Amino acid sequence: MTPERKERIIKVLNHRQPDLTVVMENVMDPHNIAAVMRTCDSVGIQEIFVLNTMIARHKKFGKKSSASAAGWLTIHQFDNTEECMKAVKAKYKNVYATHLGEKAVSLYELNLSEPVALVFGNEHAGITEECLKYCDGNFIIPQVGMVKSLNISVACAVTLYEVYRQREKNGNYSGAARLPSEQYNTLADQWGLLEDAE
Amino acid sequence: MTPERKERIIKVLNHRQPDLTVVMENVMDPHNIAAVMRTCDSVGIQEIFVLNTMIARHKKFGKKSSASAAGWLTIHQFDNTEECMKAVKAKYKNVYATHLGEKAVSLYELNLSEPVALVFGNEHAGITEECLKYCDGNFIIPQVGMVKSLNISVACAVTLYEVYRQREKNGNYSGAARLPSEQYNTLADQWGLLEDAE
Repeated sequence: MTPERKERIIKVLNHRQPDLTVVMENVMDPHNIAAVMRTCDSVGIQEIFVLNTMIARHKKFGKKSSASAAGWLTIHQFDNTEECMKAVKAKYKNVYATHLGEKAVSLYELNLSEPVALVFGNEHAGITEECLKYCDGNFIIPQVGMVKSLNISVACAVTLYEVYRQREKNGNYSGAARLPSEQYNTLADQWGLLEDAE
Repeated sequence: MTPERKERIIKVLNHRQPDLTVVMENVMDPHNIAAVMRTCDSVGIQEIFVLNTMIARHKKFGKKSSASAAGWLTIHQFDNTEECMKAVKAKYKNVYATHLGEKAVSLYELNLSEPVALVFGNEHAGITEECLKYCDGNFIIPQVGMVKSLNISVACAVTLYEVYRQREKNGNYSGAARLPSEQYNTLADQWGLLEDAE
Protein backbone atom coordinates (compact mmCIF):
# COMPACT_ATOMS: atom_id res chain seq x y z
CA MET A 1 0.00 0.00 0.00
CA THR A 2 1.38 3.40 -0.98
CA PRO A 3 1.65 6.09 1.72
CA GLU A 4 -0.90 8.19 -0.23
CA ARG A 5 -3.46 5.39 -0.24
CA LYS A 6 -2.85 4.69 3.42
CA GLU A 7 -3.36 8.36 4.23
CA ARG A 8 -6.55 8.44 2.19
CA ILE A 9 -8.01 5.36 3.89
CA ILE A 10 -7.21 6.78 7.34
CA LYS A 11 -8.90 10.04 6.35
CA VAL A 12 -12.02 8.18 5.22
CA LEU A 13 -12.03 6.17 8.46
CA ASN A 14 -11.73 9.36 10.53
CA HIS A 15 -14.75 10.86 8.76
CA ARG A 16 -17.06 7.88 9.28
CA GLN A 17 -20.20 8.72 11.29
CA PRO A 18 -21.13 6.02 13.81
CA ASP A 19 -24.48 7.70 14.53
CA LEU A 20 -25.83 7.84 11.00
CA THR A 21 -27.33 5.07 8.91
CA VAL A 22 -29.72 4.29 6.07
CA VAL A 23 -32.36 1.57 5.92
CA MET A 24 -33.49 0.47 2.45
CA GLU A 25 -36.77 -1.41 2.67
CA ASN A 26 -37.54 -3.42 -0.45
CA VAL A 27 -35.60 -1.14 -2.77
CA MET A 28 -35.61 -3.24 -5.95
CA ASP A 29 -33.58 -1.61 -8.67
CA PRO A 30 -29.87 -2.55 -8.40
CA HIS A 31 -28.94 0.85 -9.89
CA ASN A 32 -30.82 2.59 -7.11
CA ILE A 33 -29.20 0.41 -4.46
CA ALA A 34 -25.74 1.08 -5.88
CA ALA A 35 -26.42 4.84 -6.09
CA VAL A 36 -27.67 4.96 -2.49
CA MET A 37 -24.55 3.10 -1.37
CA ARG A 38 -22.28 5.53 -3.22
CA THR A 39 -23.93 8.47 -1.50
CA CYS A 40 -23.73 6.72 1.89
CA ASP A 41 -19.99 6.26 1.39
CA SER A 42 -19.67 9.89 0.25
CA VAL A 43 -21.12 11.35 3.44
CA GLY A 44 -19.27 8.96 5.73
CA ILE A 45 -21.88 6.34 6.54
CA GLN A 46 -20.27 3.03 7.52
CA GLU A 47 -23.13 0.62 8.17
CA ILE A 48 -26.40 0.30 6.31
CA PHE A 49 -29.44 -1.93 6.70
CA VAL A 50 -30.97 -3.69 3.71
CA LEU A 51 -34.40 -5.09 4.51
CA ASN A 52 -36.12 -7.31 1.97
CA THR A 53 -39.49 -8.78 2.73
CA MET A 54 -40.65 -8.97 -0.88
CA ILE A 55 -37.73 -10.27 -2.87
CA ALA A 56 -34.95 -12.79 -2.51
CA ARG A 57 -31.87 -11.77 -0.61
CA HIS A 58 -29.52 -9.70 -2.75
CA LYS A 59 -26.66 -11.95 -3.74
CA LYS A 60 -24.49 -9.40 -5.47
CA PHE A 61 -23.45 -7.70 -2.24
CA GLY A 62 -21.14 -10.69 -1.85
CA LYS A 63 -18.96 -9.43 -4.69
CA LYS A 64 -17.29 -6.57 -2.93
CA SER A 65 -14.66 -4.74 -4.90
CA SER A 66 -12.74 -1.71 -3.72
CA ALA A 67 -14.04 0.22 -6.72
CA SER A 68 -17.64 -0.10 -5.55
CA ALA A 69 -19.07 1.64 -2.52
CA ALA A 70 -20.46 -1.69 -1.28
CA GLY A 71 -16.89 -2.81 -0.69
CA TRP A 72 -16.40 -0.06 1.89
CA LEU A 73 -19.70 -0.37 3.73
CA THR A 74 -20.84 -2.75 6.45
CA ILE A 75 -24.10 -4.15 5.06
CA HIS A 76 -26.64 -5.76 7.38
CA GLN A 77 -29.22 -7.80 5.48
CA PHE A 78 -32.60 -8.76 6.96
CA ASP A 79 -35.74 -10.43 5.69
CA ASN A 80 -37.75 -9.80 8.85
CA THR A 81 -39.03 -6.29 9.54
CA GLU A 82 -39.24 -6.63 13.30
CA GLU A 83 -35.70 -7.98 13.64
CA CYS A 84 -34.30 -5.32 11.37
CA MET A 85 -36.06 -2.35 12.91
CA LYS A 86 -35.39 -3.47 16.47
CA ALA A 87 -31.69 -3.65 15.62
CA VAL A 88 -31.89 -0.17 14.09
CA LYS A 89 -33.80 1.34 17.01
CA ALA A 90 -31.44 -0.18 19.56
CA LYS A 91 -28.57 1.78 18.04
CA TYR A 92 -30.05 4.97 16.59
CA LYS A 93 -32.00 7.46 18.69
CA ASN A 94 -34.21 8.80 15.88
CA VAL A 95 -35.67 6.75 13.05
CA TYR A 96 -37.16 8.90 10.29
CA ALA A 97 -39.01 7.66 7.22
CA THR A 98 -39.36 9.39 3.86
CA HIS A 99 -43.08 9.10 3.77
CA LEU A 100 -45.89 11.52 3.05
CA GLY A 101 -47.81 10.71 6.22
CA GLU A 102 -50.20 12.94 8.14
CA LYS A 103 -47.55 14.50 10.31
CA ALA A 104 -44.75 14.61 7.74
CA VAL A 105 -42.38 17.54 8.17
CA SER A 106 -39.95 19.06 5.73
CA LEU A 107 -36.46 17.57 5.62
CA TYR A 108 -35.15 21.00 6.51
CA GLU A 109 -36.99 21.03 9.83
CA LEU A 110 -35.17 17.95 11.13
CA ASN A 111 -32.23 18.05 13.51
CA LEU A 112 -29.93 15.62 11.75
CA SER A 113 -26.88 16.07 13.95
CA GLU A 114 -28.40 13.70 16.49
CA PRO A 115 -28.06 9.93 16.01
CA VAL A 116 -30.38 9.08 13.16
CA ALA A 117 -31.48 6.26 10.88
CA LEU A 118 -33.15 7.30 7.62
CA VAL A 119 -35.58 4.85 6.04
CA PHE A 120 -36.26 4.69 2.29
CA GLY A 121 -38.92 2.43 0.84
CA ASN A 122 -39.79 0.56 -2.32
CA GLU A 123 -39.76 2.57 -5.57
CA HIS A 124 -43.49 2.10 -6.11
CA ALA A 125 -45.14 1.13 -2.86
CA GLY A 126 -43.01 3.24 -0.50
CA ILE A 127 -42.47 2.11 3.07
CA THR A 128 -44.71 -0.64 4.48
CA GLU A 129 -47.11 0.02 7.34
CA GLU A 130 -45.28 -2.56 9.38
CA CYS A 131 -41.99 -0.76 9.00
CA LEU A 132 -43.56 2.67 9.69
CA LYS A 133 -44.63 1.44 13.12
CA TYR A 134 -40.97 1.50 14.14
CA CYS A 135 -40.33 5.02 12.84
CA ASP A 136 -40.36 8.11 15.07
CA GLY A 137 -41.39 10.50 12.33
CA ASN A 138 -41.98 11.07 8.63
CA PHE A 139 -40.38 13.68 6.44
CA ILE A 140 -40.65 14.85 2.88
CA ILE A 141 -38.40 16.65 0.48
CA PRO A 142 -40.29 19.81 -0.53
CA GLN A 143 -41.26 19.95 -4.22
CA VAL A 144 -42.78 22.97 -5.94
CA GLY A 145 -42.93 21.66 -9.51
CA MET A 146 -45.51 20.00 -11.75
CA VAL A 147 -43.91 16.56 -11.81
CA LYS A 148 -43.65 15.02 -8.35
CA SER A 149 -41.18 12.28 -8.89
CA LEU A 150 -37.81 12.42 -7.23
CA ASN A 151 -36.08 9.11 -7.82
CA ILE A 152 -35.01 7.28 -4.65
CA SER A 153 -31.32 7.78 -5.40
CA VAL A 154 -31.93 11.51 -5.79
CA ALA A 155 -34.13 11.73 -2.68
CA CYS A 156 -31.54 9.84 -0.66
CA ALA A 157 -28.70 12.10 -1.87
CA VAL A 158 -30.64 15.29 -1.06
CA THR A 159 -31.40 13.92 2.40
CA LEU A 160 -27.91 12.66 3.20
CA TYR A 161 -26.29 15.88 2.04
CA GLU A 162 -28.57 17.87 4.33
CA VAL A 163 -27.26 15.61 7.10
CA TYR A 164 -23.74 16.35 5.90
CA ARG A 165 -24.38 20.12 5.86
CA GLN A 166 -25.73 20.15 9.40
CA ARG A 167 -22.99 17.90 10.77
CA GLU A 168 -20.19 19.72 8.99
CA LYS A 169 -21.35 22.93 10.69
CA ASN A 170 -21.45 20.95 13.93
CA GLY A 171 -17.82 19.87 13.61
CA ASN A 172 -18.55 16.18 12.99
CA TYR A 173 -16.22 16.11 9.98
CA SER A 174 -13.25 17.73 11.67
CA GLY A 175 -11.13 14.65 11.00
CA ALA A 176 -11.07 13.40 14.60
CA ALA A 177 -12.19 9.75 14.55
CA ARG A 178 -15.78 9.26 15.69
CA LEU A 179 -16.14 5.47 15.35
CA PRO A 180 -15.89 3.39 18.56
CA SER A 181 -12.33 2.08 18.84
CA GLU A 182 -13.28 -1.58 18.39
CA GLN A 183 -15.12 -0.86 15.14
CA TYR A 184 -12.32 1.46 14.04
CA ASN A 185 -9.68 -1.20 14.56
CA THR A 186 -11.70 -3.94 12.87
CA LEU A 187 -12.15 -1.75 9.79
CA ALA A 188 -8.51 -0.66 9.83
CA ASP A 189 -7.60 -4.33 9.74
CA GLN A 190 -10.12 -5.19 7.00
CA TRP A 191 -8.94 -2.27 4.91
CA GLY A 192 -5.33 -3.35 5.11
CA LEU A 193 -4.03 -0.57 7.34
CA LEU A 194 -2.48 -2.98 9.81
CA GLU A 195 -0.59 -5.06 7.24
CA ASP A 196 2.67 -3.15 7.58
CA ALA A 197 2.64 -3.80 11.28
CA GLU A 198 2.35 -7.57 10.92
CA MET B 1 -59.42 21.81 -16.61
CA THR B 2 -60.60 20.98 -13.09
CA PRO B 3 -60.40 23.70 -10.41
CA GLU B 4 -57.88 21.51 -8.52
CA ARG B 5 -55.56 21.29 -11.51
CA LYS B 6 -55.89 25.00 -12.19
CA GLU B 7 -55.00 25.76 -8.61
CA ARG B 8 -52.00 23.44 -8.78
CA ILE B 9 -50.68 25.02 -11.98
CA ILE B 10 -51.03 28.52 -10.52
CA LYS B 11 -49.17 27.38 -7.43
CA VAL B 12 -46.33 25.99 -9.55
CA LEU B 13 -46.20 29.21 -11.57
CA ASN B 14 -46.04 31.29 -8.38
CA HIS B 15 -43.08 29.27 -7.14
CA ARG B 16 -40.98 29.58 -10.32
CA GLN B 17 -37.63 31.30 -9.78
CA PRO B 18 -36.71 33.73 -12.57
CA ASP B 19 -33.18 34.16 -11.19
CA LEU B 20 -32.13 30.50 -11.14
CA THR B 21 -31.09 28.29 -14.03
CA VAL B 22 -29.03 25.26 -15.00
CA VAL B 23 -26.67 24.87 -17.94
CA MET B 24 -25.95 21.31 -19.12
CA GLU B 25 -22.85 21.23 -21.28
CA ASN B 26 -22.54 18.06 -23.34
CA VAL B 27 -24.46 15.93 -20.88
CA MET B 28 -24.93 12.78 -22.96
CA ASP B 29 -27.03 10.25 -21.12
CA PRO B 30 -30.76 10.83 -21.73
CA HIS B 31 -31.51 9.43 -18.26
CA ASN B 32 -29.24 12.03 -16.69
CA ILE B 33 -30.80 14.81 -18.75
CA ALA B 34 -34.30 13.70 -17.75
CA ALA B 35 -33.32 13.42 -14.08
CA VAL B 36 -31.77 16.90 -14.09
CA MET B 37 -34.93 18.30 -15.67
CA ARG B 38 -37.11 16.65 -13.04
CA THR B 39 -35.07 18.22 -10.27
CA CYS B 40 -35.13 21.62 -12.01
CA ASP B 41 -38.93 21.46 -12.13
CA SER B 42 -39.02 20.33 -8.49
CA VAL B 43 -37.17 23.38 -7.17
CA GLY B 44 -39.01 25.85 -9.41
CA ILE B 45 -36.58 26.42 -12.26
CA GLN B 46 -38.39 27.54 -15.42
CA GLU B 47 -35.71 27.92 -18.09
CA ILE B 48 -32.65 25.79 -18.67
CA PHE B 49 -29.80 25.89 -21.17
CA VAL B 50 -28.71 22.80 -23.06
CA LEU B 51 -25.35 23.29 -24.76
CA ASN B 52 -24.07 20.61 -27.11
CA THR B 53 -20.79 21.07 -28.89
CA MET B 54 -19.98 17.38 -29.15
CA ILE B 55 -23.17 15.68 -30.18
CA ALA B 56 -26.11 16.30 -32.44
CA ARG B 57 -28.94 18.44 -31.16
CA HIS B 58 -31.25 16.53 -28.88
CA LYS B 59 -34.38 15.79 -30.87
CA LYS B 60 -36.48 14.27 -28.13
CA PHE B 61 -37.07 17.57 -26.38
CA GLY B 62 -39.60 18.17 -29.14
CA LYS B 63 -41.91 15.54 -27.67
CA LYS B 64 -43.16 17.42 -24.68
CA SER B 65 -45.74 15.68 -22.59
CA SER B 66 -47.27 16.99 -19.40
CA ALA B 67 -46.06 13.90 -17.60
CA SER B 68 -42.42 14.75 -18.23
CA ALA B 69 -40.59 17.64 -16.64
CA ALA B 70 -39.40 18.77 -20.09
CA GLY B 71 -42.99 19.67 -20.88
CA TRP B 72 -43.00 22.28 -18.11
CA LEU B 73 -39.58 23.81 -18.73
CA THR B 74 -38.42 26.42 -21.23
CA ILE B 75 -35.45 24.75 -22.91
CA HIS B 76 -32.87 26.85 -24.76
CA GLN B 77 -30.65 24.73 -27.01
CA PHE B 78 -27.25 25.90 -28.26
CA ASP B 79 -24.40 24.35 -30.20
CA ASN B 80 -22.08 27.32 -29.76
CA THR B 81 -20.43 27.88 -26.39
CA GLU B 82 -19.92 31.63 -26.78
CA GLU B 83 -23.53 32.28 -27.81
CA CYS B 84 -24.88 30.12 -25.02
CA MET B 85 -22.73 31.50 -22.24
CA LYS B 86 -23.18 35.11 -23.30
CA ALA B 87 -26.93 34.60 -23.14
CA VAL B 88 -26.57 33.06 -19.69
CA LYS B 89 -24.27 35.78 -18.38
CA ALA B 90 -26.52 38.54 -19.69
CA LYS B 91 -29.32 37.27 -17.48
CA TYR B 92 -27.71 35.70 -14.42
CA LYS B 93 -25.37 37.60 -12.13
CA ASN B 94 -23.32 34.61 -10.98
CA VAL B 95 -22.31 31.66 -13.14
CA TYR B 96 -20.87 28.79 -11.10
CA ALA B 97 -19.41 25.57 -12.48
CA THR B 98 -19.21 22.19 -10.76
CA HIS B 99 -15.54 21.77 -11.41
CA LEU B 100 -12.60 20.80 -9.23
CA GLY B 101 -10.51 23.81 -10.22
CA GLU B 102 -7.76 25.47 -8.23
CA LYS B 103 -10.06 27.86 -6.46
CA ALA B 104 -13.06 25.58 -6.07
CA VAL B 105 -15.11 26.21 -2.95
CA SER B 106 -17.60 23.97 -1.19
CA LEU B 107 -21.20 24.19 -2.38
CA TYR B 108 -22.12 25.19 1.16
CA GLU B 109 -19.99 28.33 1.00
CA LEU B 110 -21.96 29.78 -1.92
CA ASN B 111 -24.66 32.41 -1.57
CA LEU B 112 -27.32 30.87 -3.77
CA SER B 113 -30.10 33.33 -3.06
CA GLU B 114 -28.58 35.74 -5.59
CA PRO B 115 -29.30 35.30 -9.30
CA VAL B 116 -27.33 32.24 -10.33
CA ALA B 117 -26.68 29.88 -13.24
CA LEU B 118 -25.22 26.49 -12.30
CA VAL B 119 -23.17 24.70 -14.96
CA PHE B 120 -22.84 20.91 -15.16
CA GLY B 121 -20.53 19.24 -17.65
CA ASN B 122 -20.11 16.02 -19.55
CA GLU B 123 -20.25 12.77 -17.54
CA HIS B 124 -16.63 11.88 -18.33
CA ALA B 125 -14.81 15.00 -19.48
CA GLY B 126 -16.50 17.52 -17.19
CA ILE B 127 -16.85 21.13 -18.29
CA THR B 128 -14.74 22.33 -21.24
CA GLU B 129 -12.04 24.97 -20.81
CA GLU B 130 -13.91 27.19 -23.24
CA CYS B 131 -17.05 27.09 -21.14
CA LEU B 132 -15.13 27.63 -17.88
CA LYS B 133 -13.87 30.97 -19.21
CA TYR B 134 -17.41 32.30 -18.84
CA CYS B 135 -17.84 31.06 -15.28
CA ASP B 136 -17.36 33.25 -12.22
CA GLY B 137 -16.35 30.43 -9.90
CA ASN B 138 -16.05 26.70 -9.35
CA PHE B 139 -17.59 24.67 -6.61
CA ILE B 140 -17.53 21.09 -5.45
CA ILE B 141 -19.81 18.89 -3.42
CA PRO B 142 -17.75 17.70 -0.43
CA GLN B 143 -17.11 13.95 -0.36
CA VAL B 144 -15.50 12.10 2.53
CA GLY B 145 -15.77 8.51 1.24
CA MET B 146 -13.55 6.07 -0.64
CA VAL B 147 -15.44 6.15 -3.93
CA LYS B 148 -15.52 9.62 -5.45
CA SER B 149 -18.28 9.31 -7.95
CA LEU B 150 -21.47 11.27 -7.54
CA ASN B 151 -23.53 10.85 -10.68
CA ILE B 152 -24.45 14.11 -12.42
CA SER B 153 -28.15 13.69 -11.60
CA VAL B 154 -27.25 13.23 -7.93
CA ALA B 155 -24.76 16.14 -7.94
CA CYS B 156 -27.33 18.37 -9.58
CA ALA B 157 -30.04 17.43 -7.08
CA VAL B 158 -27.78 18.04 -4.09
CA THR B 159 -26.82 21.43 -5.54
CA LEU B 160 -30.33 22.54 -6.47
CA TYR B 161 -31.77 21.52 -3.13
CA GLU B 162 -29.12 23.59 -1.37
CA VAL B 163 -30.38 26.49 -3.51
CA TYR B 164 -33.92 25.61 -2.45
CA ARG B 165 -32.95 25.49 1.23
CA GLN B 166 -31.30 28.90 1.14
CA ARG B 167 -34.09 30.50 -0.87
CA GLU B 168 -36.86 28.99 1.21
CA LYS B 169 -35.27 30.57 4.28
CA ASN B 170 -35.05 33.79 2.29
CA GLY B 171 -38.79 33.79 1.53
CA ASN B 172 -38.45 33.11 -2.21
CA TYR B 173 -41.03 30.34 -2.06
CA SER B 174 -43.68 32.28 -0.19
CA GLY B 175 -46.12 31.82 -3.07
CA ALA B 176 -45.97 35.41 -4.33
CA ALA B 177 -45.20 35.26 -8.06
CA ARG B 178 -41.56 36.08 -8.88
CA LEU B 179 -41.58 35.71 -12.67
CA PRO B 180 -41.73 38.92 -14.75
CA SER B 181 -45.36 39.51 -15.74
CA GLU B 182 -44.78 38.99 -19.47
CA GLN B 183 -43.16 35.58 -18.89
CA TYR B 184 -45.83 34.74 -16.32
CA ASN B 185 -48.66 35.50 -18.74
CA THR B 186 -47.03 33.63 -21.63
CA LEU B 187 -46.67 30.53 -19.47
CA ALA B 188 -50.18 30.90 -18.06
CA ASP B 189 -51.41 30.89 -21.67
CA GLN B 190 -49.24 27.92 -22.71
CA TRP B 191 -50.32 25.94 -19.67
CA GLY B 192 -53.99 26.49 -20.45
CA LEU B 193 -54.85 28.81 -17.57
CA LEU B 194 -56.38 31.40 -19.86
CA GLU B 195 -58.67 29.01 -21.72
CA ASP B 196 -61.71 29.62 -19.56
CA ALA B 197 -61.43 33.31 -20.25
CA GLU B 198 -61.55 32.90 -24.02
